[in-house]
Amino acid sequence: MAAAESGEPTRIMVAVNESTIKGYPHASISSRGAFDWTLKKIVRSNTSAFKLLFIHVQVPDEDGFDDMDSVYASPEDFRTTKRRDKIRGLHLLEYFVKHCHEIGIACEAWIKKGDPKEVICHEVNRVQPDFLVVGSRGLGPFQKVFVGTVSEFCVKHADCPVIAIKRNAAQAPQDPVDD
Amino acid sequence: MAAAESGEPTRIMVAVNESTIKGYPHASISSRGAFDWTLKKIVRSNTSAFKLLFIHVQVPDEDGFDDMDSVYASPEDFRTTKRRDKIRGLHLLEYFVKHCHEIGIACEAWIKKGDPKEVICHEVNRVQPDFLVVGSRGLGPFQKVFVGTVSEFCVKHADCPVIAIKRNAAQAPQDPVDD
Repeated sequence: MAAAESGEPTRIMVAVNESTIKGYPHASISSRGAFDWTLKKIVRSNTSAFKLLFIHVQVPDEDGFDDMDSVYASPEDFRTTKRRDKIRGLHLLEYFVKHCHEIGIACEAWIKKGDPKEVICHEVNRVQPDFLVVGSRGLGPFQKVFVGTVSEFCVKHADCPVIAIKRNAAQAPQDPVDD
Repeated sequence: MAAAESGEPTRIMVAVNESTIKGYPHASISSRGAFDWTLKKIVRSNTSAFKLLFIHVQVPDEDGFDDMDSVYASPEDFRTTKRRDKIRGLHLLEYFVKHCHEIGIACEAWIKKGDPKEVICHEVNRVQPDFLVVGSRGLGPFQKVFVGTVSEFCVKHADCPVIAIKRNAAQAPQDPVDD
């Protein structure tokens, strides 16, 4: 069937972020959940009919410092910090791109800096995917006030259809704000 | 590829309603848009991997009368009214089921009575689809206050992932509240 697929593939943008839990850079629980759900429920075996577009938005520290505990003694120290951020982001994207390659689905992945919800909506305008998939922690109304929610903002403001995939309750960490 | 598809099909619930524009019962612009989008962007050629579940919710008149201009002179008149409603609903579902049969995708369709947004969420709980597709008129905030919006309610309250497909602006009727 896939060989008979005609026309352009369906382009699915998937917003991914790092986990907040461990020091080692890896995908958040809800990012992985959204990705797995997309493969299992949408792409299925029809890999040639879809293309996944991974966007990862890195948040600069509010005060402009990437790490308050670092000592900057030379220009090289700043470059090291930037390089470390870059490596973390690349490592995250590698997780998704590697998986796509293994199952034979076309993909692209890139990193932007800024406020994730704003940048994701901006990238939707620029790239014009057929739809956007975002993971969601499924927080309650009280928790949302304090930590914000990228998925709800995208559902309201992104200029394409959006599907928010709630994190499996069984996979939620001890603090549900973590991911 | 489709033949190699393993496991249960992805069950997509699609909420459909009648057009508000003409007297003759036919699917609303946004219902047809959501259905066409689902086939084109999600199902594609992989028809054996999906099953569509059409839910149509008929709204009883607020005052309990189905038609204020009718004259009821016998019990038979009431039966006629009920039958007419039923025929309109069946005619609507026939549109979608017929199309599914033509392209060879499994489907089920049924009618419920009540407040569409509440009933759709209730049916999601009962049927547990993998996700729900709803059409949306894409109304502005001012219009929404007066006519309500089923899609936004479902996005917030349905207990499964929801994707709202906005009506193509070029297809909007003169009064955007119509559909």
